[in-house]
Amino acid sequence: MSTYEARLAALREQLKADRLDGFVVPLTDEHMSEYVGSYAQRLAWLTGFQGSAGSAAVLPQEAAIFTDGRYTLQVRDQVDGRHWSYQSVPETSVADWLKAHAPDGGRIGYDPWLHTKDWVARAKEALAEKGAELVPVQRNPIDAVWADKPEPSKARLVVHPDDFTGKSSAAKRQEMADWLHEQKADAAVLSALDSIAWTFNVRGEDVEHTPVALSFALVNNDGTADLFVASEKIGDDVRQHLGNGVRVHERHAFEPHLRSLAGKIVVADPERAVHAIFEALEKAGAKIVQKRDPAVLPKAIKNRAEIEGHRAAQARDGAALSRFLHWLSIEAPKGTVDELIAVEKLQQFRQACGDLRDTSFDTISGAGPNGAIVHYRVSEETNRKLEMNSIYLVDSGGQYPDGTTDVTRTVAIGEPTPEMRDRFTRVLKGHIAVARAVFPEGTRGGQLDSFARQYLWQAGLDYAHGTGHGVGAYLAVHEGPQRISPPGSGQAGGDEPLQAGMFLSNEPGYYKTGEYGIRVENLVLVEPRRIEGAEKRMLGFETLTFAPIDRTLVEVGMLSPEERDWLNAYHAKVLAVVGPQLDGDAKAWLEAGCAPL
Amino acid sequence: MSTYEARLAALREQLKADRLDGFVVPLTDEHMSEYVGSYAQRLAWLTGFQGSAGSAAVLPQEAAIFTDGRYTLQVRDQVDGRHWSYQSVPETSVADWLKAHAPDGGRIGYDPWLHTKDWVARAKEALAEKGAELVPVQRNPIDAVWADKPEPSKARLVVHPDDFTGKSSAAKRQEMADWLHEQKADAAVLSALDSIAWTFNVRGEDVEHTPVALSFALVNNDGTADLFVASEKIGDDVRQHLGNGVRVHERHAFEPHLRSLAGKIVVADPERAVHAIFEALEKAGAKIVQKRDPAVLPKAIKNRAEIEGHRAAQARDGAALSRFLHWLSIEAPKGTVDELIAVEKLQQFRQACGDLRDTSFDTISGAGPNGAIVHYRVSEETNRKLEMNSIYLVDSGGQYPDGTTDVTRTVAIGEPTPEMRDRFTRVLKGHIAVARAVFPEGTRGGQLDSFARQYLWQAGLDYAHGTGHGVGAYLAVHEGPQRISPPGSGQAGGDEPLQAGMFLSNEPGYYKTGEYGIRVENLVLVEPRRIEGAEKRMLGFETLTFAPIDRTLVEVGMLSPEERDWLNAYHAKVLAVVGPQLDGDAKAWLEAGCAPL
Repeated sequence: MSTYEARLAALREQLKADRLDGFVVPLTDEHMSEYVGSYAQRLAWLTGFQGSAGSAAVLPQEAAIFTDGRYTLQVRDQVDGRHWSYQSVPETSVADWLKAHAPDGGRIGYDPWLHTKDWVARAKEALAEKGAELVPVQRNPIDAVWADKPEPSKARLVVHPDDFTGKSSAAKRQEMADWLHEQKADAAVLSALDSIAWTFNVRGEDVEHTPVALSFALVNNDGTADLFVASEKIGDDVRQHLGNGVRVHERHAFEPHLRSLAGKIVVADPERAVHAIFEALEKAGAKIVQKRDPAVLPKAIKNRAEIEGHRAAQARDGAALSRFLHWLSIEAPKGTVDELIAVEKLQQFRQACGDLRDTSFDTISGAGPNGAIVHYRVSEETNRKLEMNSIYLVDSGGQYPDGTTDVTRTVAIGEPTPEMRDRFTRVLKGHIAVARAVFPEGTRGGQLDSFARQYLWQAGLDYAHGTGHGVGAYLAVHEGPQRISPPGSGQAGGDEPLQAGMFLSNEPGYYKTGEYGIRVENLVLVEPRRIEGAEKRMLGFETLTFAPIDRTLVEVGMLSPEERDWLNAYHAKVLAVVGPQLDGDAKAWLEAGCAPL
Repeated sequence: MSTYEARLAALREQLKADRLDGFVVPLTDEHMSEYVGSYAQRLAWLTGFQGSAGSAAVLPQEAAIFTDGRYTLQVRDQVDGRHWSYQSVPETSVADWLKAHAPDGGRIGYDPWLHTKDWVARAKEALAEKGAELVPVQRNPIDAVWADKPEPSKARLVVHPDDFTGKSSAAKRQEMADWLHEQKADAAVLSALDSIAWTFNVRGEDVEHTPVALSFALVNNDGTADLFVASEKIGDDVRQHLGNGVRVHERHAFEPHLRSLAGKIVVADPERAVHAIFEALEKAGAKIVQKRDPAVLPKAIKNRAEIEGHRAAQARDGAALSRFLHWLSIEAPKGTVDELIAVEKLQQFRQACGDLRDTSFDTISGAGPNGAIVHYRVSEETNRKLEMNSIYLVDSGGQYPDGTTDVTRTVAIGEPTPEMRDRFTRVLKGHIAVARAVFPEGTRGGQLDSFARQYLWQAGLDYAHGTGHGVGAYLAVHEGPQRISPPGSGQAGGDEPLQAGMFLSNEPGYYKTGEYGIRVENLVLVEPRRIEGAEKRMLGFETLTFAPIDRTLVEVGMLSPEERDWLNAYHAKVLAVVGPQLDGDAKAWLEAGCAPL
């Protein structure tokens, strides 16, 4: 019996003991995080799935794993199809699958700390049609059978200085207090880890790739706050930084504290606060106002210090990536580079700048067919050589104290085929269409998504992921609420109006299963755009990422004059930002790569 | 006291008598129609507003009228600002306004036959925050004070032959019955008038511009149906056409019939069936399944007979419009044409073809600044001469037994300014971008909307309406569910995936208040698009409307080669379709207007 087979069997035994006919396993934690601490990686432990989005449902005879278009290939590699059926969202959902597969009248368990109340309501309704019941568990049955489950991290919090944040925590909390007065509310629950880190100007090390600390918080309408975090994680520096306005409690005191809020009017975010939080407030007799977590929008709209910090981080990151691409241009044709070596080398170049705290996600290093796996994560088993006359895709980013980066470059090793050049150029044209877009205030990200796809569509092609996501300031590399993604597609967030100061990625791609993958990704800043004679306040994008785009993949004849101008101007800026940081062969290589087309 | 002032005062007296503190007046009828019979034109009677979308709310001291961006100018012309405050949707809503303005603890009336249940639920919730109550009325208080209120139309139904419909009513009902079996439901309520006309292959004359008859229906899962319509409107031919499978009842028997459905599982459409229908079903003890009216999607996806019929109608309509444009090119420069004369003349050209049953909406005939009023309706008071060196906008359509048309042309009288040419060319480029779009199956109309706006956005300009609406087959000129409009904008329907066979308008515009309006509108058919090497099933548009686009407004240097090719190919097709129907000067004029650029 394989490890995962044994774990699934153990879970089923535990469910029997708990008198449950099934159990739902999401990827997230008590904070609805995308990346979760090792203590909370229940889905990976149970199934082997290593992607950043997914969930599973286990019944006595059947089990299913649910992933979106980005993970269609990866889930088949990592999760055993003999024990798990592969399900695609948004085409199906856990609730729909349970409705079709759960036993009539069965009891299906869920952990109320790992789901939103809307999810619970929908799943309850779906199961009710089968006469089945959705039952909250007191203890997660996976935890019961996970013998060597890691403890939550005990890493200490660190103060994130105002030089980087551009605004003190007290000022942020005062703005929230003003907003709470407008809402006639007493307090707001913050349970999203990046909202808490942003609000208190602290960072942590409890989650891979995202510098946040396991905690909960309440911000009150007098500007004070209650922060719930393991006391052993708080040193004197942090305590002093937080000041008298912040009462520090143990993390496990959060739920009891909620239960003390009888009669209070409390804002809670139905997308970010889990079901258990709403239940605790309801049981307490608090009046719940369902609104978005008040940190979300101000966190997304970067201030001048955050923007300047990001520019500095991008300059370093662009130099590191450019050095790597130069190294690759020499080494890869020798046939000695594989995906793991490339990850290692890129990491070294980033570390050499001295400021790197972490990667902002696991580097996607995809040679040939592995590049077609959208969120590929290289391992010893899947590791491939970078071969001549193939394409190599590298998507990576760094966490620096002044900024979070995320960049994808696709490079030809040897001679690309005409098809590769055609596909790359269509992706690049889409990228340029977004980069050059001008749009009125109030425009939602979803209104720009098709600009990125149009040239692929003309050839009957497309890509199964969004075009862009928000990005944090030394915080989560995937940050809401803004997003450039197809409206109505189930990929939430394309509905948010874009506002000056927001960071987004611009990353169209094309993936040919079994052959190669292409993606061109830069980060962009939403900024006001003054236009002579304009009748509306207009916005546009400033590209923030600086690294050369591989000219050997560009079919110049397919570019319009405006697109060629954009690429030449972009490369001129890359040279201006990165050039002074390089010398010798690397600089000469950069100059050649950035010469006008 | 003016007429409208007196009517508002009379309504307020009636509200007092009915012990109400306010009343909500929508534009629609018991069928959620866009165009309504004269008996139901309560909003126009009360306020003077003649637009096709809007609503009003009346309180003891205040009254407000709510319209969208298309009617911002028109509402100010038609409705007295001393008695009515102008409110814009979607920025505000009746519910929000009532929440802010209704008296604490007040009773606000509404007619449950004129609102959806979702509207009622939202408005109830908003008022509850004020301690105010939303109260259904037994009799509409406007009807009580509207002394000379017209009777509902008594026009007879006519059979719409299978040659035009392409499918018998029995076959349509059988498909609905199969669908009802899948839903495990007994029957579906049809209350949308075009759904009923489509399902039974009948047409009526009860509503201006839309050939429908006042009626309700239930389609049962055995393929039979109950049709509720005034018996005096049904002749032997229609009775025979309907056959034994359709039981005909009086229209007023509909609500009592609903109350007889205890224990039945009944499909009702929350977007199309009014609150009173849901209430009757609930009171009866029926089990309601909330699903879209099963006629909506098959009605939107036209079959071969409907498409061929539409092409024939377009050929006639294009010839009529071309004759009109030729006439205009001669007469307008003489200074003798005004907006009303133009409407009359265009109508004559359409009638001359012999098949015209009605216009598909009130012709928008806007000279100079009147063209900037998006849904302008000319009257004796507003009538303007077509002046030299100005722009004239004409948006019109015909109801023919084989098809419904809708077309807008903008023409220069004399010499247009460089700005007019620039704006027109940006609008045309957007029109062409939609016409040439290729997109995968599953794409929603909202994903294409920005293609139409991009060239205006580049100049800081935009237009405050959707880009395209669905169109019926000798039915409503505005037909759902498909629509090309900004996602998340509150203009519903941009979420519907486009499917081969759907008709849509493609009508970007630009409006300079007080100066001129521009719109270029053709109808298009969604059709499969075969592309060499495509990895997905792709769709595109075939343009269905044929009339010359004014070349004197085109700044040729702003067109890309592909755009110029499109325009030349379009004009070649106009010449091929319309040319053979013209002769003499008109034909020579058409040939010149369609010559390649």
